Amino acid sequence: MASMAEALGQPMRDFTQDHRWLSVNTATVRQSRGQDWPLAQILDACAARGIRAVSPWRDQVQAAGLAATSRQLRALGIELSGYCRGGMFTYGSKAELQALVDDNRRALDEACELAAPCLVLVVGGLPGALAGAPAHKDLGAARAQVAEGIEWLLGEARARRMPLAIEPLHPMYAADRACVNTLAQALDLCDALDPGRSGALGVAVDLYHVWWDPQLAAQIERAGQAGRLLAYHVCDWRLPTRDLLLDRGMPGDGVIDLRGARALVEAQGYAGYAEVEVFSARDWWQRDGGDTLDSCIERHRRCV
Amino acid sequence: MASMAEALGQPMRDFTQDHRWLSVNTATVRQSRGQDWPLAQILDACAARGIRAVSPWRDQVQAAGLAATSRQLRALGIELSGYCRGGMFTYGSKAELQALVDDNRRALDEACELAAPCLVLVVGGLPGALAGAPAHKDLGAARAQVAEGIEWLLGEARARRMPLAIEPLHPMYAADRACVNTLAQALDLCDALDPGRSGALGVAVDLYHVWWDPQLAAQIERAGQAGRLLAYHVCDWRLPTRDLLLDRGMPGDGVIDLRGARALVEAQGYAGYAEVEVFSARDWWQRDGGDTLDSCIERHRRCV
Repeated sequence: MASMAEALGQPMRDFTQDHRWLSVNTATVRQSRGQDWPLAQILDACAARGIRAVSPWRDQVQAAGLAATSRQLRALGIELSGYCRGGMFTYGSKAELQALVDDNRRALDEACELAAPCLVLVVGGLPGALAGAPAHKDLGAARAQVAEGIEWLLGEARARRMPLAIEPLHPMYAADRACVNTLAQALDLCDALDPGRSGALGVAVDLYHVWWDPQLAAQIERAGQAGRLLAYHVCDWRLPTRDLLLDRGMPGDGVIDLRGARALVEAQGYAGYAEVEVFSARDWWQRDGGDTLDSCIERHRRCV
Repeated sequence: MASMAEALGQPMRDFTQDHRWLSVNTATVRQSRGQDWPLAQILDACAARGIRAVSPWRDQVQAAGLAATSRQLRALGIELSGYCRGGMFTYGSKAELQALVDDNRRALDEACELAAPCLVLVVGGLPGALAGAPAHKDLGAARAQVAEGIEWLLGEARARRMPLAIEPLHPMYAADRACVNTLAQALDLCDALDPGRSGALGVAVDLYHVWWDPQLAAQIERAGQAGRLLAYHVCDWRLPTRDLLLDRGMPGDGVIDLRGARALVEAQGYAGYAEVEVFSARDWWQRDGGDTLDSCIERHRRCV
């Protein structure tokens, strides 16, 4: 696929010589040797390796303290490539609705405090499904709640000048994590809720979720043309994949054509970070966190 | 979704009173109490319960003998709702190509001998991936081989008057089992290879693979309008799903809106079998096969 960018006269960025465009999603090193690795240590370890950007998860920030994390990031000169995450817009009761409203406001405020370029949205599946007790089986109704939720949050986000990035999740998460499952579906939402292409609403392209899509190239082009490419996440699809959630591969471990996919986003002018996000309970989380960061750098140069 | 069929003036068939439209995919009872259950015994057990149709897998037929299976089916008055399966069109060498050509011809001949209404196609993923050694990462190239393969097989199938049903597989199988992953993609292939809508090429709608698709209703309508609804498979999506391949639920075990989906196919005039296809290493295959068949009947009436 690399020839496409070249045909458009957009030579791809050369990642082989340095890692200035590497961002590490901190979930990738959530554990070191099977034990929780505190965010403060993760950030120090990133800085020591010249990693310029991270994308932290809210539970990690909460454990480390928001103000302390913000201070540490500034002191280390590390910026964010995104903040994980807002969303989970589906609900079965008024109490759940109130809770998600409050939680998403907090997520926006935290993203602002950390100077994130966008808040990434994982939109939620059937209400209650993640806890094992789905309230119903009507995916269409869940999708309607998601559209309403994003519409509401977009107002809150505009007031804070914090862009929202809808992340379509792999269809295998449709029931319990996100009922937005393709780039086309996410972009349809963007077009409906932000027809003016204000920059306030876009998508996070995570290859783990969209690499299989026959419409991948067309929808990346559509996103680029609309100015909606807000984040780009990489990892790999292992063969076999032993767990639906926690068996992602580090770039190079699997079968995703990472170079070809990057050609597509760069052909649309994407010039931001390639964020490595690996959930790997059996493999990478069992390794030394510093070694895993070294692997992120090496794979970024060689495979991304 | 049930209101859609009603709005179209097509009352849904009533499955609650009998199981005349139940077909059992024989993989559902591939094992009884964790041991292989021979096809001949499966067929006898189906007949004893008034199950009118099955869809057998080729390895089960091979173990039982093609001629013997054909005779037994006729003697019992059991018909097929489909034959599993042809396909696996991707290859990395001339030897692999020759092998898949020979194998697909045999699959067609077997389907004819068993008087199947269609041969179901699982098209294959990256060549070599199922064996753990993908020859490359170019999904587009794999998809091109699939299109070529179906085009070739369609000629062979027309000569035998055996319809081909392309089964889009869930995106989580894109790498190793099938790189046709949505109904839209399968129907695009049908339109390209059989523009005249001859009846020789269509799709198998297996809800396990397509239930999540935001385009489900639209693409079922498209398939129906083109006369391409050749088979309809049901099972369920378990929460949690503990294995990518062998943890399907029996209808009613999970979150798929089975009644709503059937309303969609019946609104398009589908009047054939609802084929129960469950791969369940940890649960249903551990139970007594006769009990599992009883459950197929009970769930067919209550949930499908």
